[in-house]
Amino acid sequence: MDGELFKRYAEFAVRVGVGVLPGQTLMITAPIEAAEFARCCAQAAFEAGARDVHLRYEDEKLARIRYQNATEEALCDVKPWVERSYLDYVESAGGTSILHILGEDPEAFLGLDADKINRARQAARSALKTWRSYTMNDRVAWSIVAVPTDNWAKKVFPGCAQEQAVEKLWQAIFDVCRVTGGDPVAAWRQHIETCTAMKEKLNALNLRSLHFTSGNGTDLTVGLAEGAVWEGAASTTPQGQRFIANVPTEEVFTAPHRHRVDGVVYGTRPYVYNGDLIEDLWVRFEQGRVVESGARRNAALLKTLLDTDEGSRSIGEVALVPASSPINRSGLLFYNTLFDENAACHIAFGDGYPGTVQGGTELTQEELLERGVNHSVVHEDVMIGAADTRIIGVAGDGRRVTVFEDGVWAL
Amino acid sequence: MDGELFKRYAEFAVRVGVGVLPGQTLMITAPIEAAEFARCCAQAAFEAGARDVHLRYEDEKLARIRYQNATEEALCDVKPWVERSYLDYVESAGGTSILHILGEDPEAFLGLDADKINRARQAARSALKTWRSYTMNDRVAWSIVAVPTDNWAKKVFPGCAQEQAVEKLWQAIFDVCRVTGGDPVAAWRQHIETCTAMKEKLNALNLRSLHFTSGNGTDLTVGLAEGAVWEGAASTTPQGQRFIANVPTEEVFTAPHRHRVDGVVYGTRPYVYNGDLIEDLWVRFEQGRVVESGARRNAALLKTLLDTDEGSRSIGEVALVPASSPINRSGLLFYNTLFDENAACHIAFGDGYPGTVQGGTELTQEELLERGVNHSVVHEDVMIGAADTRIIGVAGDGRRVTVFEDGVWAL
Repeated sequence: MDGELFKRYAEFAVRVGVGVLPGQTLMITAPIEAAEFARCCAQAAFEAGARDVHLRYEDEKLARIRYQNATEEALCDVKPWVERSYLDYVESAGGTSILHILGEDPEAFLGLDADKINRARQAARSALKTWRSYTMNDRVAWSIVAVPTDNWAKKVFPGCAQEQAVEKLWQAIFDVCRVTGGDPVAAWRQHIETCTAMKEKLNALNLRSLHFTSGNGTDLTVGLAEGAVWEGAASTTPQGQRFIANVPTEEVFTAPHRHRVDGVVYGTRPYVYNGDLIEDLWVRFEQGRVVESGARRNAALLKTLLDTDEGSRSIGEVALVPASSPINRSGLLFYNTLFDENAACHIAFGDGYPGTVQGGTELTQEELLERGVNHSVVHEDVMIGAADTRIIGVAGDGRRVTVFEDGVWAL
Repeated sequence: MDGELFKRYAEFAVRVGVGVLPGQTLMITAPIEAAEFARCCAQAAFEAGARDVHLRYEDEKLARIRYQNATEEALCDVKPWVERSYLDYVESAGGTSILHILGEDPEAFLGLDADKINRARQAARSALKTWRSYTMNDRVAWSIVAVPTDNWAKKVFPGCAQEQAVEKLWQAIFDVCRVTGGDPVAAWRQHIETCTAMKEKLNALNLRSLHFTSGNGTDLTVGLAEGAVWEGAASTTPQGQRFIANVPTEEVFTAPHRHRVDGVVYGTRPYVYNGDLIEDLWVRFEQGRVVESGARRNAALLKTLLDTDEGSRSIGEVALVPASSPINRSGLLFYNTLFDENAACHIAFGDGYPGTVQGGTELTQEELLERGVNHSVVHEDVMIGAADTRIIGVAGDGRRVTVFEDGVWAL
């Protein structure tokens, strides 16, 4: 891996991704395999004026041992200190930002009890409810970036030797994250402008619904929440801190109405849930809820996801990504949602973002539900865009507008 | 490294070292380099009936970046969640034990501002005051074991290539921790019996003071605390959980009187403090307090340690280790106190153990001070035993007893 690009990627993650402000404490989570990158980010944060850096390491192999051996009762018993470990910083002078470094084995939990894992993760998310309301409402700046780890690289490049696979995955990440040119900051400034322009076009249309069709059988109508607004690329905290929640990001997205989604949709990319792969999924919606579902691989795991809670059967996000995106053009399947969701249009089962309806971050949970914004402890993106995807929108004035044709923007 | 011994060492650490009980949560701290060993300990803990395992990874290289870049104010600002992350488990049903896995670079913080680091570490220890009272009073079972890391191994075996150095350090650790024979559990049962017998002999003498002399110039009188009792090898919690606080351990130890230590003592092994080495130290005591000190290397760092707080200039522990100990016989200098303190008699600047005076765990801090037990946020062992060390004790009945002759037990 190119050491200079490695450093630029870390600097970009800290300065633009999370956009750390002088005097802030930067929290970092990282798999232990990504220690070198995490330290490089810590150094970059101090150089950007951070007051301090707190790094929490994660270990999927240990998580697997726990999922295998601990009882569900123990796994679901998440102690108060866990949420305090976030809130202590967000509530203190100077505030905080958080950078999540990902490097997941797509099959880390293969063969384990999926229901047990799902309930354990649900408990872990519920225990972070207050903290999650900070990130879901953009009240703290947050960003997710990825670095290769051994098992992930082998899944993406199964024909390569270990070292070569990691090397190739680094190159792929540098490419699709606009680092390869050597000036990710400038490349991203340009990219954010493009996304922002598209977002403004969509907002001007005041769309009420989107109708997705594709040769694969997809025929899905997604009604939008009341006052839905399109977001994309950069986000901003109430204090004016600009950040990019996902690196890479190619999507513009908004809030569907949780009761107004109907039809059938086919997944177009494998999708990793709780450390295992779901392939060739399909779901049928009626009045916003999934009433039928299936998959060629791991149909039961998909059902586990949909059964998580009251809101996990409805969608909280619809996102448009043209087939011309760098991730799709790379021809790679990343087996990681952070990348694969940016190769194709997608929907997310579960929680919606308050910021995707007008004035939403000021609304109560009840008011958001009233507007049609979904609520759940999960938020899981599944890819539905294909090379021939057509999307017809119905605008605020009743006019029909072709939004996508042959998988790309038609606006 | 021998995979079978690796596994037995982990099982020993969990089952005998910390002695985890069924239904307990085991906390583990480990450097990220020791992940494989930490996971092996987690697996062993579940097999021993643990309810859950929580593993916190540490990273000295990140700590170095923080010490270099963060202000002292930021470093000393330890948030409440840190102590809660221990207390949440100790206060919950089933209780907890803690296993600390060590693998420190002896010179991790070489060249940094020692005073700043000392104050940061003092703040970190102060923030754990309640938790530390659990471990210092043996109210939770705790154990420290070590595994090789790259920089540590290179310091111990500077003439070897990296991989060979690590391999040799594994072998040395297996040897001195009684793992090499393949049955550490039985070997330790025997060893604990031997230590216990010696401890009982010493307690029967009801010693009031010890006079250390050696050809290196050491001439030190250590008066003992009122009601001092000798401890060693295994400890026991009030709930009856037996554990070995340090692996390896070759010492029997007790509480000096914080006002009754006089004379000069010379260090006999280099000593690592806050990630840097102090070599050839000497100190002179008057009425329990160090009034003069020096060292061939890092005399200023020694002064930093002694200046930490009111109690850091007095000693809280005196420990007897014969020159025949496996660590001393190995001929190795480990540059790690966990090992080096078990090669030679030592004293500890700072905090004393309440359990080393009669009924001490039931006494208040004031009552302990009254008995002569020292108090400080630090507890730092320095090695003072030599091959010719002689120790003359004064027994409760006024009789003079030769405790050590030519560096080994004379009882």
